[in-house]
Amino acid sequence: MRRGNLMTGLPPRQAAEQTERLIDTAKLRIERIVSTGQASPAGFWYDQPDDEFVVLLSGAARLRFEADDLSLDLRPGDWVEIPAHVRHRVERTQADPPTVWLAVHRSA
Amino acid sequence: MRRGNLMTGLPPRQAAEQTERLIDTAKLRIERIVSTGQASPAGFWYDQPDDEFVVLLSGAARLRFEADDLSLDLRPGDWVEIPAHVRHRVERTQADPPTVWLAVHRSA
Repeated sequence: MRRGNLMTGLPPRQAAEQTERLIDTAKLRIERIVSTGQASPAGFWYDQPDDEFVVLLSGAARLRFEADDLSLDLRPGDWVEIPAHVRHRVERTQADPPTVWLAVHRSA
Repeated sequence: MRRGNLMTGLPPRQAAEQTERLIDTAKLRIERIVSTGQASPAGFWYDQPDDEFVVLLSGAARLRFEADDLSLDLRPGDWVEIPAHVRHRVERTQADPPTVWLAVHRSA
């Protein structure tokens, strides 16, 4: 039985986000993502083939959605369902303490 | 776009666990479960047809697995993957502050 803790073993502040795949099957992928100040590159939008459910567990972040130019400031416990092909980007993440996300991606 | 916060709107202490379905599709079900001291009935074992990924977000709980009579004390951030048909039960949950779980069930 696989297990772990989402809030321990956080990497030190570093240049790139750290993504750890906790579950990785054909139908479902669950990841812990640790951000330490990173944001999406200028002009970049995620446009994903899968539905995503994401929860912010610690830290803070701002998501932006292309449609309606909607911005969401996320605090711990906030979750968002991002349907496939809804274009979005990460505007900013808190570096310290780190921003920890749990992301669930479901294949169509 | 559906969204919410897992740590707010917690129900008052009550007789039964409260389960809220955040995502409910044929392939995937994501639930927030709030426990306030409940445990599985004596002699009861969950025997689920689906794989489950569960995270304890706040509070504390003890899970027990029939195989090897394994007990796991869960703290915030702890996650466990419980494969389909792995028999398990909830031995105890912390009542106050409440125990909050995020459970991801994936259909086979």
